Amino acid sequence: MPDPQTTTRRVEQAAPRPDGPRRIILDCDPGHDDAVAIMLALASPAIELLGITTVGGNQTVQKITRNAQSVLEMCGRQDVPVHRGSARPLLRDVHVAGDIHGESGLDGVELPAPTVPVADARAVQYIADTVMAAEPGEITLVATGPLTNLALAARLEPEIIERVREVVIMGGGYHEGNVSPVAEFNIWADPEAAAIVVDAGWELTMVGLDLTHQALATADVEEQVRAIGTDLAEFFLGLMGFFRRTYQEVQGFDDPPVHDPCTIAYLIDPSVVRTRRAPLHVETSGDLTRGMTVADLRPGADLEGCRTQVATELDRDAFWGMVVEAIRVLG
Amino acid sequence: MPDPQTTTRRVEQAAPRPDGPRRIILDCDPGHDDAVAIMLALASPAIELLGITTVGGNQTVQKITRNAQSVLEMCGRQDVPVHRGSARPLLRDVHVAGDIHGESGLDGVELPAPTVPVADARAVQYIADTVMAAEPGEITLVATGPLTNLALAARLEPEIIERVREVVIMGGGYHEGNVSPVAEFNIWADPEAAAIVVDAGWELTMVGLDLTHQALATADVEEQVRAIGTDLAEFFLGLMGFFRRTYQEVQGFDDPPVHDPCTIAYLIDPSVVRTRRAPLHVETSGDLTRGMTVADLRPGADLEGCRTQVATELDRDAFWGMVVEAIRVLG
Amino acid sequence: MPDPQTTTRRVEQAAPRPDGPRRIILDCDPGHDDAVAIMLALASPAIELLGITTVGGNQTVQKITRNAQSVLEMCGRQDVPVHRGSARPLLRDVHVAGDIHGESGLDGVELPAPTVPVADARAVQYIADTVMAAEPGEITLVATGPLTNLALAARLEPEIIERVREVVIMGGGYHEGNVSPVAEFNIWADPEAAAIVVDAGWELTMVGLDLTHQALATADVEEQVRAIGTDLAEFFLGLMGFFRRTYQEVQGFDDPPVHDPCTIAYLIDPSVVRTRRAPLHVETSGDLTRGMTVADLRPGADLEGCRTQVATELDRDAFWGMVVEAIRVLG
Amino acid sequence: MPDPQTTTRRVEQAAPRPDGPRRIILDCDPGHDDAVAIMLALASPAIELLGITTVGGNQTVQKITRNAQSVLEMCGRQDVPVHRGSARPLLRDVHVAGDIHGESGLDGVELPAPTVPVADARAVQYIADTVMAAEPGEITLVATGPLTNLALAARLEPEIIERVREVVIMGGGYHEGNVSPVAEFNIWADPEAAAIVVDAGWELTMVGLDLTHQALATADVEEQVRAIGTDLAEFFLGLMGFFRRTYQEVQGFDDPPVHDPCTIAYLIDPSVVRTRRAPLHVETSGDLTRGMTVADLRPGADLEGCRTQVATELDRDAFWGMVVEAIRVLG
Repeated sequence: MPDPQTTTRRVEQAAPRPDGPRRIILDCDPGHDDAVAIMLALASPAIELLGITTVGGNQTVQKITRNAQSVLEMCGRQDVPVHRGSARPLLRDVHVAGDIHGESGLDGVELPAPTVPVADARAVQYIADTVMAAEPGEITLVATGPLTNLALAARLEPEIIERVREVVIMGGGYHEGNVSPVAEFNIWADPEAAAIVVDAGWELTMVGLDLTHQALATADVEEQVRAIGTDLAEFFLGLMGFFRRTYQEVQGFDDPPVHDPCTIAYLIDPSVVRTRRAPLHVETSGDLTRGMTVADLRPGADLEGCRTQVATELDRDAFWGMVVEAIRVLG
Repeated sequence: MPDPQTTTRRVEQAAPRPDGPRRIILDCDPGHDDAVAIMLALASPAIELLGITTVGGNQTVQKITRNAQSVLEMCGRQDVPVHRGSARPLLRDVHVAGDIHGESGLDGVELPAPTVPVADARAVQYIADTVMAAEPGEITLVATGPLTNLALAARLEPEIIERVREVVIMGGGYHEGNVSPVAEFNIWADPEAAAIVVDAGWELTMVGLDLTHQALATADVEEQVRAIGTDLAEFFLGLMGFFRRTYQEVQGFDDPPVHDPCTIAYLIDPSVVRTRRAPLHVETSGDLTRGMTVADLRPGADLEGCRTQVATELDRDAFWGMVVEAIRVLG
Repeated sequence: MPDPQTTTRRVEQAAPRPDGPRRIILDCDPGHDDAVAIMLALASPAIELLGITTVGGNQTVQKITRNAQSVLEMCGRQDVPVHRGSARPLLRDVHVAGDIHGESGLDGVELPAPTVPVADARAVQYIADTVMAAEPGEITLVATGPLTNLALAARLEPEIIERVREVVIMGGGYHEGNVSPVAEFNIWADPEAAAIVVDAGWELTMVGLDLTHQALATADVEEQVRAIGTDLAEFFLGLMGFFRRTYQEVQGFDDPPVHDPCTIAYLIDPSVVRTRRAPLHVETSGDLTRGMTVADLRPGADLEGCRTQVATELDRDAFWGMVVEAIRVLG
Repeated sequence: MPDPQTTTRRVEQAAPRPDGPRRIILDCDPGHDDAVAIMLALASPAIELLGITTVGGNQTVQKITRNAQSVLEMCGRQDVPVHRGSARPLLRDVHVAGDIHGESGLDGVELPAPTVPVADARAVQYIADTVMAAEPGEITLVATGPLTNLALAARLEPEIIERVREVVIMGGGYHEGNVSPVAEFNIWADPEAAAIVVDAGWELTMVGLDLTHQALATADVEEQVRAIGTDLAEFFLGLMGFFRRTYQEVQGFDDPPVHDPCTIAYLIDPSVVRTRRAPLHVETSGDLTRGMTVADLRPGADLEGCRTQVATELDRDAFWGMVVEAIRVLG
């Protein structure tokens, strides 16, 4: 249970670095939409992708790690290091989202075999070391899977908390859920890790289902991508085709919401993702609400010293414009 | 934790009685907005108010019971019996909403002394006996306080569950809270009772904060009431004046939301309160979410056999028209 | 969660009535050991059994109620009224102990058909009315099943709390469990009801597994009963034969513990059951501990105003002497 | 909540190394009784103390770390490296046991200033690296504080789980508590970490309060130590004097229980600490039971593949003989 003193405590904010691209570590579990997030991060000059860390979630961490390598391979960017991370949540049993992402975690496409090995260091160590070696306020952490790696890094090396520029997560939702009426998969899969990350005291932006359910890959989006005509465009269409089918069957959606790249879009251009500051915590123990992200949106909520914000509204055209352009640029 | 088999079970529905006024028992804890609910129920020809039962909530049950009598006195309707109910929640400690409703539970007005005594039978017994003595589908239970009495009645005499026509509660909220970011006072005050009532299997309509936060007593509403010029109009204005101040100070609202009469408005004319069918349960055990009403609003939610619905949208003009007219009619 | 102020509050104690037999209502769910408790209560001049109330537990309340009538029939005491009580726990789903007590709830014997009907009033109403009609301190409530009826009676008519002389329950355990490592069936089956009863503030004695696991029906006990040679002795042996088998198979015991009559033995002669005063509460929400009775046995525990005690040690010879004598006396 | 599949899973057991001293890492929070554990580990030829890691618990990790260094200084063993560990629990807020151990964590004695610095690596990293660099089955982990470091090490480098020979913890209790009726401080302070460690699958021995409340530093023990007449003997007596006073005032004990060295005594000579195999888990979410260690001691408990055991009975004379001898040997 969050202690007011803890959760509203002011961590000395790392000075923002306005110049140059945002230097990020992407912690992910590709995953169809994670793959799109990787593409967007690689293609945009506003982002410098230092490394990818992996975490068990949409599939086992073994499959996830290979998928991350394969997506980099597809994009011709084997130079980006991939560090393997947590195979399991802090406390909960492993549950993968095979019903949504298939047996491989990226069903619907052929995946090229990786040509470079996984990096030596464990993901958690890589995150801690990279942040500590960089300038204060230099590194942004983006997480699009369960938050196990970030939680472990924050507890292993607490000094990263005030050294990180910002943490941006895809996960949760203040009014929407998918695995339960009020819980989203990434948070539900490791609620204790999520509680650690959300309560840590760093600047944190939650890009939850409220926002990402606006990022639907509709027919006109696919049309634009099809017009590009490259292998990568085909790859994207293969991913979306599978994703659409599972989202229709399992979740009752017409078009699939492409969650994860919304975090990257927000970093490229914050005006694309409207946000609202709100106290935010994670429920770890309810019978019906385990894994819910609880945002205090009441008129009288205390925002003094609040370092969490939630994404509320997506500029859909701008977002899909970015994604389509990324696929084009990556050739 | 609700068991799917239990919570989705189909209780044989009592045949609705379309003719004549809705015969209701009003279980309440006046309370400024409860007082308005009583007025609306008394004034409308579409409602027959069989009796009032009281429950500790906005204030102690002693004060609440006297307040109910005083409001009837104000309206010249001492013939409606008042039965005193539960002084405390099933399990939780007693918490009253003195910060919102004041020391008396109806601060801001002079209350006439009751001229008739409280009825002999306890509220729970009265509810059970009245429902069992009536025809199946005849009685509607309206609750605008904590649900302790209704829960006890359902467990004392389970046969009322299929005999009641409908249960309409003011309480909860699928996206809004007041005592916590996600919990409303009536449910939070006795979450176990609320769980019993919501999971019982009878037809249930939750008029929660999502709806009642649309029922703001704005300046133009007060203007209309002031024009009536009766003692009862003054009484209403006194109530609203106090209610506005506490809602401004404690909850950060400009105008006070007049929650409870929305239940009566819904019964008078369902078109005034738009509803949506959704599986509904009450969280009794979370650290952050205790007392939350969890509605499954996902596109893929299973509505087969679902007997719960939530109020979503208020026809504000029609609602206030009813209330103003009620004050005028009661003279 | 018990609030210290509530749980240690001093309810004005009803003056004990030292003269004459203890006047009891037995709330039970026969059940092999409940049947023995009924026999012991009927046979002892120290006990006046005013009535039996039934509750779903070892089997459904329908079967339980019939079993109670049949046991009275076996003992020729159809004059004791049987009131049917709760079919289900306050919140939890119904779970019966068919693995221990069989399909009928009293497997292993032939049951005579009842020759008198069940009483009109519901169990909860009967308990409340009987206590209120008696002198303060006159009635003792004995419960050997889930505590649903007692909890409902205490909430329906709170005045019984200071009017009852004592509540004696078979249930729980401070160091032993059966349905889980730390929970006993009667408490686990309705933990919220148990919390209400244990925290109510009346004088309460918990005869838990710590005590009743000392009440084993060993071969020498059966030998003594066999020597009596009556139908009732055969009935007892039939019950114990079945009970031994299920306890061997399901719980790994050599001889079956005959829990419920220990409560009656304690009332007949308190020296047979040693007790210890200790603050006592019920866990309603743990993942591993739901339904555990938590007794504070630490050296520094605060016993000021404590009205709960736990049974610790059984005088085995005296206990079985009482039971054998009861079977003999009942003929 | 432990999943049966997970918690009873068989991790391939590291082959035990019967020859030579037990090579241990001592993870502790000195702490009066931790200090005695360090002395016992240093003095016994059956133990090789590779390093000490520290964790916030009895006091803040800053004070704890300095205390560990000072105790080594007192014993003339500055060669044993001290690695600083977790300042806070995984999720819970920091609570120190200042009421028991005083402002410094070792009140009652003068502490020599450390003459060697704290080691560079963080405790968690040191544990993971040391275990991975050693032979399988070589290293035993002993923990006498909250289990934050061990939990983090197991999640950072899961391969240590099958590589460690055994984990021995002072903490918990199957029938005793201190901070609550059923919870012991070390487990209660970080129940999530404890759940991770207890459910990990390695061979684990819990030396809980059931055992350590038998290790009372009585007057005759002090007499024996006083007869030694060294500075270290005085140091021990100073520690015990303070410890006795707080245990008398706060816990109602006559003599203080010296918990932590019982773990070392068990490793020196297992016959001094009788143990019993039992499935063991940690409650992380109850209202009354949070932080309880739940051992399944029922006759029918499933011990197939069970890798946890609990300490039950102490050979008091042998134990105190070891401690007195250690103080003598260390000079």
